[in-house]
Amino acid sequence: MQTESYLALKSRAKNIVHSDIFDAEPLLLSHQWPQLQQAITAIRQKVKAAELWAPHLHKSLGGQGLSVSQLGDLSALLGQSPLGHVCFGCQAPDAGNAELLHLYADERIKNEFLKPLANGDIRSCFAMTEPAMAGSNPTRLNATAELKDGYWHINGHKWFTTGAEGADFAIIMAVTETDKPKHKKASMIIVPTDTPGYSIKRNISVMGSEGHGYFSHGEVIFNDVKVPEHNLLGQRGDGFLMAQQRLGPGRIQHCMRWIGIARRCFEIMCNYIKRRHITDDETLAQQPVMQVKVAESYAAIEAAQHLVQATAERIDQDGYAAAKHDISMIKFHTAQMLQQVMNHAVQALGGLGVTDDTVLSFFYREERAARIYDGPDEVHQLSLAKQLLAKFD
Amino acid sequence: MQTESYLALKSRAKNIVHSDIFDAEPLLLSHQWPQLQQAITAIRQKVKAAELWAPHLHKSLGGQGLSVSQLGDLSALLGQSPLGHVCFGCQAPDAGNAELLHLYADERIKNEFLKPLANGDIRSCFAMTEPAMAGSNPTRLNATAELKDGYWHINGHKWFTTGAEGADFAIIMAVTETDKPKHKKASMIIVPTDTPGYSIKRNISVMGSEGHGYFSHGEVIFNDVKVPEHNLLGQRGDGFLMAQQRLGPGRIQHCMRWIGIARRCFEIMCNYIKRRHITDDETLAQQPVMQVKVAESYAAIEAAQHLVQATAERIDQDGYAAAKHDISMIKFHTAQMLQQVMNHAVQALGGLGVTDDTVLSFFYREERAARIYDGPDEVHQLSLAKQLLAKFD
Amino acid sequence: MQTESYLALKSRAKNIVHSDIFDAEPLLLSHQWPQLQQAITAIRQKVKAAELWAPHLHKSLGGQGLSVSQLGDLSALLGQSPLGHVCFGCQAPDAGNAELLHLYADERIKNEFLKPLANGDIRSCFAMTEPAMAGSNPTRLNATAELKDGYWHINGHKWFTTGAEGADFAIIMAVTETDKPKHKKASMIIVPTDTPGYSIKRNISVMGSEGHGYFSHGEVIFNDVKVPEHNLLGQRGDGFLMAQQRLGPGRIQHCMRWIGIARRCFEIMCNYIKRRHITDDETLAQQPVMQVKVAESYAAIEAAQHLVQATAERIDQDGYAAAKHDISMIKFHTAQMLQQVMNHAVQALGGLGVTDDTVLSFFYREERAARIYDGPDEVHQLSLAKQLLAKFD
Amino acid sequence: MQTESYLALKSRAKNIVHSDIFDAEPLLLSHQWPQLQQAITAIRQKVKAAELWAPHLHKSLGGQGLSVSQLGDLSALLGQSPLGHVCFGCQAPDAGNAELLHLYADERIKNEFLKPLANGDIRSCFAMTEPAMAGSNPTRLNATAELKDGYWHINGHKWFTTGAEGADFAIIMAVTETDKPKHKKASMIIVPTDTPGYSIKRNISVMGSEGHGYFSHGEVIFNDVKVPEHNLLGQRGDGFLMAQQRLGPGRIQHCMRWIGIARRCFEIMCNYIKRRHITDDETLAQQPVMQVKVAESYAAIEAAQHLVQATAERIDQDGYAAAKHDISMIKFHTAQMLQQVMNHAVQALGGLGVTDDTVLSFFYREERAARIYDGPDEVHQLSLAKQLLAKFD
Repeated sequence: MQTESYLALKSRAKNIVHSDIFDAEPLLLSHQWPQLQQAITAIRQKVKAAELWAPHLHKSLGGQGLSVSQLGDLSALLGQSPLGHVCFGCQAPDAGNAELLHLYADERIKNEFLKPLANGDIRSCFAMTEPAMAGSNPTRLNATAELKDGYWHINGHKWFTTGAEGADFAIIMAVTETDKPKHKKASMIIVPTDTPGYSIKRNISVMGSEGHGYFSHGEVIFNDVKVPEHNLLGQRGDGFLMAQQRLGPGRIQHCMRWIGIARRCFEIMCNYIKRRHITDDETLAQQPVMQVKVAESYAAIEAAQHLVQATAERIDQDGYAAAKHDISMIKFHTAQMLQQVMNHAVQALGGLGVTDDTVLSFFYREERAARIYDGPDEVHQLSLAKQLLAKFD
Repeated sequence: MQTESYLALKSRAKNIVHSDIFDAEPLLLSHQWPQLQQAITAIRQKVKAAELWAPHLHKSLGGQGLSVSQLGDLSALLGQSPLGHVCFGCQAPDAGNAELLHLYADERIKNEFLKPLANGDIRSCFAMTEPAMAGSNPTRLNATAELKDGYWHINGHKWFTTGAEGADFAIIMAVTETDKPKHKKASMIIVPTDTPGYSIKRNISVMGSEGHGYFSHGEVIFNDVKVPEHNLLGQRGDGFLMAQQRLGPGRIQHCMRWIGIARRCFEIMCNYIKRRHITDDETLAQQPVMQVKVAESYAAIEAAQHLVQATAERIDQDGYAAAKHDISMIKFHTAQMLQQVMNHAVQALGGLGVTDDTVLSFFYREERAARIYDGPDEVHQLSLAKQLLAKFD
Repeated sequence: MQTESYLALKSRAKNIVHSDIFDAEPLLLSHQWPQLQQAITAIRQKVKAAELWAPHLHKSLGGQGLSVSQLGDLSALLGQSPLGHVCFGCQAPDAGNAELLHLYADERIKNEFLKPLANGDIRSCFAMTEPAMAGSNPTRLNATAELKDGYWHINGHKWFTTGAEGADFAIIMAVTETDKPKHKKASMIIVPTDTPGYSIKRNISVMGSEGHGYFSHGEVIFNDVKVPEHNLLGQRGDGFLMAQQRLGPGRIQHCMRWIGIARRCFEIMCNYIKRRHITDDETLAQQPVMQVKVAESYAAIEAAQHLVQATAERIDQDGYAAAKHDISMIKFHTAQMLQQVMNHAVQALGGLGVTDDTVLSFFYREERAARIYDGPDEVHQLSLAKQLLAKFD
Repeated sequence: MQTESYLALKSRAKNIVHSDIFDAEPLLLSHQWPQLQQAITAIRQKVKAAELWAPHLHKSLGGQGLSVSQLGDLSALLGQSPLGHVCFGCQAPDAGNAELLHLYADERIKNEFLKPLANGDIRSCFAMTEPAMAGSNPTRLNATAELKDGYWHINGHKWFTTGAEGADFAIIMAVTETDKPKHKKASMIIVPTDTPGYSIKRNISVMGSEGHGYFSHGEVIFNDVKVPEHNLLGQRGDGFLMAQQRLGPGRIQHCMRWIGIARRCFEIMCNYIKRRHITDDETLAQQPVMQVKVAESYAAIEAAQHLVQATAERIDQDGYAAAKHDISMIKFHTAQMLQQVMNHAVQALGGLGVTDDTVLSFFYREERAARIYDGPDEVHQLSLAKQLLAKFD
């Protein structure tokens, strides 16, 4: 994994993350959206100039073509800021969508959508989760797409469509095969967001804020939306399978991003308690109760990091299918570790910890969802356990 | 505690909390401050008409004169909504400030400030915590008040001054006795907020929002503020002692409010999982993993409730001093229970749990501070332990 | 609950527990069974002389006739030693068996078995759990009793038959009604242990020791055992119902006993850390990390104690049926609290904590089963949750 | 690490562990000491014949010369049984003692003690911990050795001297340099156990049993014991330094042994719940509450395993000194993981879990001490935190 060229790339990335990107964070924390967008645009130029853009994408698409384990390692760096992935062009859901288009779209679609997406010129969203259906069971969908006269007629009600605001196209999961078994019912279809019948009902207010752009989650209505037949991605009925494939790499990236967040919180905590005096002579860092939080956090982060890295290496060697239960394992283990570390850090910072004067409270509230999205802890635990128990008799 | 007249009062209160107050919550969750203020004003009229106003205050001040244990019990009801205490006229910091004025102010101050405060006509704030000093050690203060020519000349930099926005007066803790031991250095002084030199630097953004009015925390500057000598509350150097007395009842009320929050979260969780289908035939409520969360939450809430109630009864019998270590005990125990229950509930609701479509995520992020304000867990744990260990040898 | 006569009784009991009974513990810890039996016999004389014998039994049976909440309170005192209940004549399973005979036996049985049992002259055991069947589901039984020619012909294989060694009679749960629904299949039958076909296969080695007498758990074989028809207790098919009734009071007593154990462990911990130096100038008690354990333990014990006591009082007022879900709640909540406190105490004592030089390690290993016997945590949690969730819709 | 020759060695080892060694466990669990000794002797022959003996020792000493990471990996296999390390000749304290003799003894001592020790012909013990002194601070020692006329005159009172019963020599830590700073006061001296003045006061009863031989912990008295000057190991005053060096490798081995124990417990749990029916149609393995325990346990074991293995590899590359804080980290992290997994397994097995019918309860009670010996969790946490915090300012 640690080739010289990768290490050089990581070093260039670190410079940008720890200066430009950290510096731009207050714009996010204070909801100054236009200024934030300007800052992101400027940093992206720097990222491109430094040959760091789109580390997840093949070189043919203008990316850096990293392996899964390299990408994971880099993701732990980018994850240190909520702006990291956005500035490097590998943010959700665009990264996963680009992967889908790369694998399943025909040339026309690739030209029209993938190229500008890969280049960061347009944005996209992924409309799968529905308010009426448990997100933990993606085979349960109400949205439908009916093929008539060469057009898909799409109806559906989606939410948690991340980044819907400002997206140029959506990929929707909808039932196209009503008579097939549940894992073969759904397909993925590209819908340009200027298609009549497509509308964003609202940005869902999440943890107190409706967010904006990349940092928003839309509730989206498909009201008799009509798109050409060839907007289908892959094969009819393969939507669920493709979603699994899309989520696999995403989960590694999420986990490594969480490692990055945990490390950032750990550093904020350590820096703070070293400086904070509780008496004239004593800092919080000298308080054994704080030291226990530091030690527990560090060990938990390191253990999770090794676990995720081992999974990434296994994928590089044997592919995603072989690592299926490892991926379930790291999903819940890392998310729980993250919550514990963020919680320790908030407690260590006291009043400051709940303010937006540091990035900590942003992570604390936004990443509570880490234990929920892409399958809640419980779903992954039961799934992992069933796989493990199948080997015993 | 459970006298007939109290039970009747509680029943009237319940009607208002579970209808009018719950109905007004979306205005808070969507930051519609002016509409929220209107709604609060209307509900307060209803509360007054139902003879429920200011349950914590003596009848002579227009309150209901409840005992500590009755007030605690009522607080568990009001706490079910973030608007409960505000609508009943017993919100922090006004409730504690009124208590201070009642005990320590002279008649003129009582007429000018206490009467309208008790009636809800004006608002107040309490400026103690300083950004440069660990809040966990209130004997460390930089703010000073120097008596010259019959006036206090006050300089200081405070934050987490709850409700500063819109307050008509502040009570400031400042060092007046530089040559006394640390527990006898500070005094409390009333500062009308239109006094020159007093300014609100900002509403601190807390967990993503600057809030408004009651729901805000100010950073406040006292720049050579001048107020008359008689604005002193109580005796010079008694500030720390008075702060302790002010916090004692407040902690019982906080704990019972947290019980109320925990119960609300528990109900939201139970209601949700009963209705949420994970397959056509099965709801989340039938999932054993969810049932464990329900059972753990319920037991934890009930245990904490009995513990806090027993402490309140002890105070009614023997006074605050006798219950000092019980108060430390319930402070951290209840706050930790609350965090656990809120966390279970968020997890149970999945994606919905992090949105502002329910009040849950408001509680989840706002009440993280329950383990911090009025002394972090760790401070109360060490304090309790030292008291307990003193009995062994 | 706290009548003067009860308080006097408790005070007399305390004297015996804290001197004679604590003094006899080393005999238990070093497995000196004959000497231990002598010590118990001597203490029992003192207990009887002090009018403390059999606090759970009606005065007509030579007991003290305490209410449920008084008995609970006393149990927290007796529980401080593994010898407490045995010395006071209210140890499991004899206490529950006496209750069964009192309620369900005819006069002849009462004369033959109940009287000497109540007086401590003979011992008994209760044969319900079977190795082949999950103990968490007592409706699943393999043991059978067939009525032929006025005799029950009993076959069965039981284990965890506490105190089988030395018992004069057993009460066995066996299926007598093969054609009834599962809750109506079993009956309870008295079997004198000298009946042919009855044998103790072994004392099960539990946590490293086979124990002895009261402190043993037998594996018991019923091989075509024949007893007269009138040895049936209560009605045919009521065994499950009677078992539930037998366990109800037992659970309160267990919970209060666990409170007692937790308090003992807490005291051992506090005493130790006050004396143990880590440097010439500093004891463990001054270590904040230890102080956190002390504070957490104390709060957890107090909360559980109030919860159990409230349940006991509810039973005194409204009966067991009304408190069914409270009993499930305190069963798992108190057992988990106990494990936490014992664990903190062992850690605080370091190497000494795992030795048998204190009673701590005895509790630590023996009472791990508190979370298992009479229904594991999980069974009670699911049961409680289902009852709670039934109220929501 | 995974060379072909190592993998072949591990495969041979696995055969012996999973058959002969597992088969001998009941002798340990039922305290049949003579039969157990015979079984161990027989298995050791097999181990030697299979060229597996003393994997930790240099080939020149008749060992296998494994690297730290290989030895760790093997230790995770041997750890699956309490008999594993004993049968392979790498049990504590002999393994560490051999290492000491190898590094610090002169040829005569090596011939007299190291050779037969390495070969398993004699046994040894290590007398460091004292009942009057906190084991967590090894610089506090009462034992003294005074050099007079070419002889060390040793006085001391030690306990937790593992394997003292049957040992042929002890290595004692005693203060020889009263006027040096605390880390330079102590030295290590070899004392043959037949030296006058040396006596074993008792085998300490630990978790209910005094154990025997390898499985015992002695309380040892040195009453004016006299040994020749050349029995000193290394330099005067280097005892503390040598103890640290001795413990470093031991901690890796302990951690990997705990991984092995955790895996064994995990397997016992999975096997049991797959077979255990709770109804005719459903096993415990189908219960989601059990599945959560399975998933959590698995993830925790894997994470810890990767963490320990990474530390072992770091030691192989950079030496022990470079990995000092990693070793603190894995010490408490792995021990806590172990306790959690053992606890889950006991709960899953219900009544069977606390019996000695499986090896589970042996591990549960014996390995509670994992969080205590070689430095309790808290000591390692504070030590790690201080090292980490030193990097911040």
